[in-house]
Amino acid sequence: MTDGHEREAVTESSPPTASSQTASSQPTSSSTAPPADRRAFLKGAGLGAVAGASYGKFALSPITPAAADPIAPPKMSSEKWWPSKWGADDQAGSSNHITPAKVLEAAKWIKDGKIYKLGHDYEASMPLFGKRVFTLRIPGGPTGGPFGENRLVYHDEFVTTEIGQVGTQFDFLGHIGIAMGTPGDRSEMRFYNGHTVADFSDAYGLKKLGVEHCKPLFTRGHLVDLVPVKGRMMEAGEEITVADIRAALSKQNMKEDEIRPGDAILFNTGWGTLWKKNNDKFNSGEPGIGLEVANWVIEKDLCLTGADTWAVECVPNPDKTLAFPVHMTLQTKHGIVNHENLAFDGLIADKKYQFVYSFTPVPIVGGTGSPGVPIGIT
Amino acid sequence: MTDGHEREAVTESSPPTASSQTASSQPTSSSTAPPADRRAFLKGAGLGAVAGASYGKFALSPITPAAADPIAPPKMSSEKWWPSKWGADDQAGSSNHITPAKVLEAAKWIKDGKIYKLGHDYEASMPLFGKRVFTLRIPGGPTGGPFGENRLVYHDEFVTTEIGQVGTQFDFLGHIGIAMGTPGDRSEMRFYNGHTVADFSDAYGLKKLGVEHCKPLFTRGHLVDLVPVKGRMMEAGEEITVADIRAALSKQNMKEDEIRPGDAILFNTGWGTLWKKNNDKFNSGEPGIGLEVANWVIEKDLCLTGADTWAVECVPNPDKTLAFPVHMTLQTKHGIVNHENLAFDGLIADKKYQFVYSFTPVPIVGGTGSPGVPIGIT
Amino acid sequence: MTDGHEREAVTESSPPTASSQTASSQPTSSSTAPPADRRAFLKGAGLGAVAGASYGKFALSPITPAAADPIAPPKMSSEKWWPSKWGADDQAGSSNHITPAKVLEAAKWIKDGKIYKLGHDYEASMPLFGKRVFTLRIPGGPTGGPFGENRLVYHDEFVTTEIGQVGTQFDFLGHIGIAMGTPGDRSEMRFYNGHTVADFSDAYGLKKLGVEHCKPLFTRGHLVDLVPVKGRMMEAGEEITVADIRAALSKQNMKEDEIRPGDAILFNTGWGTLWKKNNDKFNSGEPGIGLEVANWVIEKDLCLTGADTWAVECVPNPDKTLAFPVHMTLQTKHGIVNHENLAFDGLIADKKYQFVYSFTPVPIVGGTGSPGVPIGIT
Amino acid sequence: MTDGHEREAVTESSPPTASSQTASSQPTSSSTAPPADRRAFLKGAGLGAVAGASYGKFALSPITPAAADPIAPPKMSSEKWWPSKWGADDQAGSSNHITPAKVLEAAKWIKDGKIYKLGHDYEASMPLFGKRVFTLRIPGGPTGGPFGENRLVYHDEFVTTEIGQVGTQFDFLGHIGIAMGTPGDRSEMRFYNGHTVADFSDAYGLKKLGVEHCKPLFTRGHLVDLVPVKGRMMEAGEEITVADIRAALSKQNMKEDEIRPGDAILFNTGWGTLWKKNNDKFNSGEPGIGLEVANWVIEKDLCLTGADTWAVECVPNPDKTLAFPVHMTLQTKHGIVNHENLAFDGLIADKKYQFVYSFTPVPIVGGTGSPGVPIGIT
Repeated sequence: MTDGHEREAVTESSPPTASSQTASSQPTSSSTAPPADRRAFLKGAGLGAVAGASYGKFALSPITPAAADPIAPPKMSSEKWWPSKWGADDQAGSSNHITPAKVLEAAKWIKDGKIYKLGHDYEASMPLFGKRVFTLRIPGGPTGGPFGENRLVYHDEFVTTEIGQVGTQFDFLGHIGIAMGTPGDRSEMRFYNGHTVADFSDAYGLKKLGVEHCKPLFTRGHLVDLVPVKGRMMEAGEEITVADIRAALSKQNMKEDEIRPGDAILFNTGWGTLWKKNNDKFNSGEPGIGLEVANWVIEKDLCLTGADTWAVECVPNPDKTLAFPVHMTLQTKHGIVNHENLAFDGLIADKKYQFVYSFTPVPIVGGTGSPGVPIGIT
Repeated sequence: MTDGHEREAVTESSPPTASSQTASSQPTSSSTAPPADRRAFLKGAGLGAVAGASYGKFALSPITPAAADPIAPPKMSSEKWWPSKWGADDQAGSSNHITPAKVLEAAKWIKDGKIYKLGHDYEASMPLFGKRVFTLRIPGGPTGGPFGENRLVYHDEFVTTEIGQVGTQFDFLGHIGIAMGTPGDRSEMRFYNGHTVADFSDAYGLKKLGVEHCKPLFTRGHLVDLVPVKGRMMEAGEEITVADIRAALSKQNMKEDEIRPGDAILFNTGWGTLWKKNNDKFNSGEPGIGLEVANWVIEKDLCLTGADTWAVECVPNPDKTLAFPVHMTLQTKHGIVNHENLAFDGLIADKKYQFVYSFTPVPIVGGTGSPGVPIGIT
Repeated sequence: MTDGHEREAVTESSPPTASSQTASSQPTSSSTAPPADRRAFLKGAGLGAVAGASYGKFALSPITPAAADPIAPPKMSSEKWWPSKWGADDQAGSSNHITPAKVLEAAKWIKDGKIYKLGHDYEASMPLFGKRVFTLRIPGGPTGGPFGENRLVYHDEFVTTEIGQVGTQFDFLGHIGIAMGTPGDRSEMRFYNGHTVADFSDAYGLKKLGVEHCKPLFTRGHLVDLVPVKGRMMEAGEEITVADIRAALSKQNMKEDEIRPGDAILFNTGWGTLWKKNNDKFNSGEPGIGLEVANWVIEKDLCLTGADTWAVECVPNPDKTLAFPVHMTLQTKHGIVNHENLAFDGLIADKKYQFVYSFTPVPIVGGTGSPGVPIGIT
Repeated sequence: MTDGHEREAVTESSPPTASSQTASSQPTSSSTAPPADRRAFLKGAGLGAVAGASYGKFALSPITPAAADPIAPPKMSSEKWWPSKWGADDQAGSSNHITPAKVLEAAKWIKDGKIYKLGHDYEASMPLFGKRVFTLRIPGGPTGGPFGENRLVYHDEFVTTEIGQVGTQFDFLGHIGIAMGTPGDRSEMRFYNGHTVADFSDAYGLKKLGVEHCKPLFTRGHLVDLVPVKGRMMEAGEEITVADIRAALSKQNMKEDEIRPGDAILFNTGWGTLWKKNNDKFNSGEPGIGLEVANWVIEKDLCLTGADTWAVECVPNPDKTLAFPVHMTLQTKHGIVNHENLAFDGLIADKKYQFVYSFTPVPIVGGTGSPGVPIGIT
C-alpha cells in the first residue's frame, strides 16, 4: 500500500461520528487553490453547465453540478490515490483477492447444494438510469432457415443497450473517475491507478481497465439485511451506518469478524421491492451505504460490495455537494468492485446469509461493466 | 420419457456403425408423403430459394437449401418429439439436471481452488457467423460528468449485437427448431416441447423458451481432448466418433463410466487455435461431433455439450443433405444445451480434464442464448 | 361494415380502367370458405391473442385482435388485388406518377422561392409507436483525432432505431400487408402486387418492395386544413369525410378539380399540436381519413397521402373490427404511399395551401420506409 | 508545407470580400506561442499515439498522428476563424445561402422535368470508413399482426449505424474540428464559430451545430467531370487543381463565371466506380480537391462541395503532415457543407452538367451529418 493510499484513507475515515460530517471535514483543500487571478480567468472561461446533469429521472435528485472553482482540486481528492495496492500496472483491482486459497475457503460453505440467482431478468420494462436503453429484437421469424433436408430453422436476438450498465450490473474499474483538472481536460480525468480519459478512453472501447481484466469471482458472501433492523424498507437518501450493519449481523447471528479480507458484502435495503413496480420511485434516489461504511469496507479489505439498489450507496448523499462519493472512494481509489440491482428474495426466505458469491463478468473488451446475475451457493 | 421420445431416440440411434449412415437410414419417411398431385401443386407454388443460405462465410459450405418436397416430413423428424422428458410445460430442458444433489456431487471436485476461464473475450475482431455483428461504442469521453464538487465522471459502453449468438455463446431452447410443414408455415415450425414459431416467436423477444428459464449450471465437466488422439488439429467436416472419445479418455486416464447423467462434456478439437488468427477458415466449417456421439450424449443423459468451435458439431455433416442435425437432435428434441466457442488452453496446460463446469446465463427475457464464459473449477 | 367499407369493395370489383380489371377477374373466393366444422375446429385451436396488440400506448385503443375465423378470407379482402395497375413486376407503386411532365407541371408552382420543412426533428423525446425506439449516442468526445499536424478531430453519431418508422416517416410498400391464410402462414401474408412474407421478408432486409425502389417525389401538393372547418383540433377516432375536404377547400378558395392524378394530398387535423406536448394522448389514437376518403384518393389517382398524425387515417376506425383499413387499402392494394407525422405550421401561417411537395426517401435497401422531412416549395 | 497550404493561410488573412473580412480581423496568434521550455516539457509528457489512427482500412494511408509539439498552434490554424461570416450565433453555415431569391434562380434550371438520384443505396455491403457499421434487421417476420378482422400485418426495419457518416453522406458543422490546445483539452477543440467540444459535445447528441440547423438546400449545381480531362479514373492522392476544373468546364462548354455565390460544385473523379466493386481500394485513399481548390471555393462563396468519393478531398494530402485539411478549411473555418459518396452516372450519361441540386438533411437533433441522396433536377 502506498503512502498516498494510506493518507487518503486516513483522511476519509477520520470523522468517526455522523456520516454526513465526513465530507464537511475537508475544507483544507482550498489551501492548494491557485491564485485568485487565475481562478477569475477560469470562471470567465465559460465552463458552462454540466450536460449530464439534465438526464433522466435521476436529474431530479439534488446533485450539484461541478461549478464554482474548477481549478481547485475536487472535494475529497486532494491527494493522488495511485499507484494502487495491487501495483501500478494492475488492472484487476479487488478481483485479485480471488486466489486458490480464497476459493477453497469459500467452497467450504457449499453444504446444501442450493443455488440462488441473485439478480433480475433483463427486459425493456426494467428501471433504467438516465437515458440508458435496453432493446431486444428477434430478426425475422424465424431468423434463418429452413436449411437442409432436415429443414432446420433458427432464431437470434439482436440487442442494443449500455450492456454493462443496465439491470443487474457489475461495475468495473473503467466506469468511475474524477475530474482533477479543469472540467474539459481529459488528461486530468483520473481513474483507478491514475489512468486518464486521454490515455484510455476511446470511442470504440476502453484501452485499459476494461472488464475483461476482471478475474472470476468466487468468494464468501455475506448478506446484511437492513429491513428487519429498520422494520421497513429504507428510504431514498437514508444511509446505512456501521451500527446498522452490526445490528443486522446480530439479528442474523453472525459475527463481524467472520467478514474477512476478500469477502463480498451485500446489502438488502428493501428498495429492490420497487423493481418494475414503481420504476420512477426506484430511480429517484435510493438508500445505501455512505462514506463511513465505505471506509469500513476498505479497512476490512473486502472484494466487493453489492445491494438491491442501482448504486449501492445512498443517493442523494447526506452531503448534497457530493455525487456518488462511495463509488469514487471504493472503485476509483481502491479498485473495489460493485454489483448493483441484486435480488435476495430466495436467500432471505431461507434465512441464508452466508454463501459462496460466484460471478464471472462477460469479458467485453473495453467494457465498463458486465451484465449477468451472480449466484449464491449454499 | 414419452413414447414419442423413446421411439424417436431409437430411430436415431439404430445405425450403430458409421455415423454417416445415420441419415441415410431414413428413407422410409417417404411413405408418409402426400399424394403426387398435392406435391405437384406445392412444387408449383413458388416456394423458392432459402434466403438465409446466402449469408456470410458459412454459405460457402455445402448446406442444401430446403427444397424438393416441402410437404413431406423433414428428414429425421418423422415422429414428434414432444412432450419432453421434463414434462410438457418444461422450459428449462437439461438445466433441470442441476439439483442440490448434483451441485454437491460436483463441488467434491473443487480441490485446488483454481479457476479457469473457458471462453474468449468479446470484441469486434472475433469471428462471427453469417451476418451477425458485434459493435461497441463508448458514448462521450467520458459519458457523464463532472458531477458534484467531487467532480465524478463516468463511462458507459453501448453495444449492439446478436448478444446470445456471438463469441463464446450458450445456446438455449428457443434457438433451434424444425420446419415440419410447408416452409412458410410458422405454425408448424417446431421447437423444444413442440412449441411453434407462431406461438412464441415475437419481434420483441421469444414468448417461451427464453434463456431466462435456464437454471444456473454447476456440474461435473469432462474435457475430451482430441488433439493428442489425432496428433493434430482436426479439420472441417471431420467427425468425432465415440471411438475417438474413448481413445481420448484412455489417454487422459479417465473411464467412460465416470461420465454420469447431468454432467457436461466438452471437446477440444484444436479448431479454436484459428480464433482471430484465421477467422475465414474458422468460419468455413469445423470438426465436431455427429449423430453417433449425439446419441451417446442422449444415452448418457448429459446436461451440456461444448467445444472450441462455433457449433460443436461437424460442419459440413458427412451427410451433405443435413444442416446442423446435432443441434436439432440435442437441443430441439432433447432439450440438451450447448456451449460454443470455448477455450481450454489453461486446463490442457495443467492436464486438468475433470472440473466443475459453472455457468449462469445472462437471463435476457426472450433471448435465444447468452454471452459469457463458463468457468472450470478444480 | 361501414359505408366506406362497402364502397371500397365496390370500387375494387368494378374497375373502369384496364389497370384495375385484373383484380376483378378473380373468382369470388367466398365460395372456397371451409365447411363450418373446420372453422369450429380452428376457433378452438387456441390461436390466441395477437402479440403485437399488447405493445405500447396504442394498445389502449380498441383494435380487435385477429380471432374468430382465421381460415375465412379476411374482411375487405375477398378478392385478390394483384397485379397492380403499374404491372405485375412493379415495385415503385404510386411514385411512378412522377414523370418529367409531372415534374414540370409541379415546378410551375414555384413562385415565391420559399421552402417549408414539413416535418419534425428526430430526437428521443418524440412520440413513438408501440415499442419502437430512437437512440443516439456520440461515440467518444470527440470520436476521432487529433490527426495530423493540423490536429483534426471529428464526431460521429451512432443511431439505433426503427429508422423508417419513427418520427416524420414515409411508408413504402413493404410495410403493410394482409394475412390471407391462417395466421401463421407466411406464404399467404400478401403485400403490394401479391408478394408474400415467405417470398420477400428476410431477417436482414426485405428482398422486394424495399424503399430503395421509390422514385424521387416532386409533385403538386395540396394541404387540406380541417381545423378551421371544425373550429378546433379534431379528436381521436374522428373521421375526415369527403364533405369535410370540400368544406376545407372552399374555405381555402380551392377547387376540387385542381387535385389531379399524381398529386399529393395532405391533411392538417390539429393533432400534431400534441407532438412532444402530450405524447401519451398523441399515441392513444388520432383523427384522420377513413375508407370514404381512401376511395376518393383512389378515384383521384393520387400519388401520396399525408397528415400531422402518426397514421394519417382515423384510429380507431369507426368499424371497430378493422385495424388500419386505410393503410391496407391505399398502400397494400393500390401502392399509394403515405407520409406521417408531418408539420404544416409554416404553410398555414402563410396561408399557402398549394406548393411543390418534394421528398426523396433515403434508399435503404430492404427498408419499409424512410426518415426525412419533405419540403413544400412555393 | 505545400503551395496550397501557403495560399490558404494567405487567403484567410487577406480577404478580398466582405464575407471573409470577419476572420481577418483577428490578431496574429503566432505571437502567443509558448516558450521553448514549456514545449519541451510537453514533448516529454507522453502524449502518446492517436488512437483513431489505428482504425480500419484508412489507417494504411499515411496520416501523421498529432505528435511533435502539441502546445504550439496546430498547422494552418494560427488565427482564430470565428465569428463566422454568418454571425457569431449562426449554426446554419453555408445553408444560409438558400434564400428565396436563390431558390427562384435555381428553379429556372428546371427545363426537362428529369430527376436524377445522385447517391447510392444503403446496405451492409457498401464501403465504410474505419470502424463504422451499417446493420439492418427486420424484427419478426412480419413485425406485427395480424390485427383486426382485416388481419393486417406489418414490417419495421431496425437499423444501427453511424447514420450521418455512412454511405452517401452529408457533413454538417458538428463533424469536423481542430484541437487547438493540448490533445486532451476538450475546451480547446474548436469547431465552426469557435464552439468547443467541452461546450457542445454530449454523449447523447451535440448540443450545438447539429444537422437539424441546416436549411433545406435547393440551389444551382455544377458537375465537373474530371474523367474526360484525365482520360481515366483519377487515383488516390491525386489532387484536382483549379486548372483541372477550368479544363473540365471548357470540355463541358461551361464558363467559370456561371458558378455563382451559393451554388453547389460537384466533382466526378471516377473513384466512385470502385463502389462495392473494390471496397478495399475505395477506402484506401482517394483523389479529390486540395487546398488550392478549397480556396477557390471560398473565393467563389459557394454553398456546397460534393464528389463521388468518401471525403471529396484528396487523401492522402500532398502534404503528408496534414489530415483532411480541406474539411477543416471549408467546414470548420468557413461553414461550407460537403456531400460525400455521390453518384453521377445518370447526369454524365445525359451530358447534364448543370441542374438543381436539392437536398434536405434528415433533421437528427445533435447529429453530425445526414443520410440521404440529393437529387439533380433538369
